Amino acid sequence: MKTITSIADIQKELLVHKQNGKKIGFVPTMGFLHEGHEQLLTVARKENDIVVLSIFVNPLQFGENEDLDKYPRDYERDEAVARKNDVDYIFYPSVQEMYPESPSVTIKVNQRTDVMCGKSRPGHFDGVATVVTKLFHIVQPDQAYFGLKDAQQVAVIEGLVKDLNFPITIKRVSIIREEDGLAKSSRNVYLSAEEREEAKQLFASLVLASKKIVEGERNPDQIISLIKQHIEMTTSGKIDYIEIYEYPTLNKIDILQGQIIIAIAVAFTSARLIDNKILIVE
Amino acid sequence: MKTITSIADIQKELLVHKQNGKKIGFVPTMGFLHEGHEQLLTVARKENDIVVLSIFVNPLQFGENEDLDKYPRDYERDEAVARKNDVDYIFYPSVQEMYPESPSVTIKVNQRTDVMCGKSRPGHFDGVATVVTKLFHIVQPDQAYFGLKDAQQVAVIEGLVKDLNFPITIKRVSIIREEDGLAKSSRNVYLSAEEREEAKQLFASLVLASKKIVEGERNPDQIISLIKQHIEMTTSGKIDYIEIYEYPTLNKIDILQGQIIIAIAVAFTSARLIDNKILIVE
Repeated sequence: MKTITSIADIQKELLVHKQNGKKIGFVPTMGFLHEGHEQLLTVARKENDIVVLSIFVNPLQFGENEDLDKYPRDYERDEAVARKNDVDYIFYPSVQEMYPESPSVTIKVNQRTDVMCGKSRPGHFDGVATVVTKLFHIVQPDQAYFGLKDAQQVAVIEGLVKDLNFPITIKRVSIIREEDGLAKSSRNVYLSAEEREEAKQLFASLVLASKKIVEGERNPDQIISLIKQHIEMTTSGKIDYIEIYEYPTLNKIDILQGQIIIAIAVAFTSARLIDNKILIVE
Repeated sequence: MKTITSIADIQKELLVHKQNGKKIGFVPTMGFLHEGHEQLLTVARKENDIVVLSIFVNPLQFGENEDLDKYPRDYERDEAVARKNDVDYIFYPSVQEMYPESPSVTIKVNQRTDVMCGKSRPGHFDGVATVVTKLFHIVQPDQAYFGLKDAQQVAVIEGLVKDLNFPITIKRVSIIREEDGLAKSSRNVYLSAEEREEAKQLFASLVLASKKIVEGERNPDQIISLIKQHIEMTTSGKIDYIEIYEYPTLNKIDILQGQIIIAIAVAFTSARLIDNKILIVE
């Protein structure tokens, strides 16, 4: 495993592999790797000859009220995780390397942003799309891996790749869950014992909703009410949103049909949890 | 020579050449090819194994007051010009092929736009950068060719490629001129005989300015005054702008140093002419 900090160096290394016809899988991250990232690396390892992990805390995707400096970092631990997961290259550039000056162009995300978590983070996805574009051009992967825990990010990236014709395949990787269904998250440790017990109800409510849809319900409002009722009855959390859209366009729908996402966010005392389920409705 | 209208097909064709290690040169155009385009094709032909010409009138770069439908088109003539210049592939997609739906992401050009001709065309370069990004991803050239007649466009594209790390080299191709120095342009035919005679003074004023700089003048205002005086004295045209910037950043400068551009636009009765000179000041 090699750690590379310079754009020119990683391009030189990867060019050799590309010329040898190797398939390159790419997992872009902001570091502080957890099981979700390991899942991405596991899938990438299975499907590619070369696995590249990038670690870069991207200033462009932080809002004015979001504390970039407080974002957790632990490069040594990340390196150990990467090694354990058989990564070939860590691309670990500095801010200076990625943004030597204020960029003269950026990506503007015009759709898929003003819903779900994006509503409260104006400009966030512009920053994400800009750094992902840069990283895609630097690494030139065949396939790039994103976790469905952040389903809105996956939707934005799929739009980026499709609408700007990137020659890259985006691979969606499923949410990994605890035994009781709670989506794994580094925030789960902030839950009290009682809240942790309640938190499994987020997934339970999504399962309940899916069943109702399988049984024939096609009215999104009915499904939203059902989830709302379930979460309110079984948890002490405060519902931030329960939303249903066509996926990945995140367009509103009146009738449940095609590929859809049910997305929820619930605030507990010290942790706001998100979860979602993507399903195809015949 | 093959004409290809589908994105998937051109990608399939070019992939074979890439895998065989061929160097791909790309000339993106809006068609209605003239000598300027032929110059780009000539240089591209010399420097690459495969030459790809794209012809696509990009709706995204037309402003609300600019008439997209009136943009001149003549595919048959263009095809003959391409054949004469030994082009390998013409990529000639429909609007539907390039924009099957309103794009969820676009490129936002944050710098280099509010000067020169860009001042009066808000959003124009966003549209240019977006379509060029798409075309670069579709064609994946090693080198792409742009004419310095539109020096602001070259500056924007160089910023795009540098700041988003496209693995592509941008090649600047010099302005081609008539014997008396007038920059070639399809608009020159709209000049009256008298105006045509006067029009050579645009280039003459740039030559005069260059000489003054070589002699030691480092004050941009002095150079601008000199050009203004020359054009006013020798032509009946109305000066639209005379501007000097660092190139390609198009940042303002107080002292002439480094790579700079002197750009002018002069309106005659039925044609607005532009010209420029890029020079390196020690």
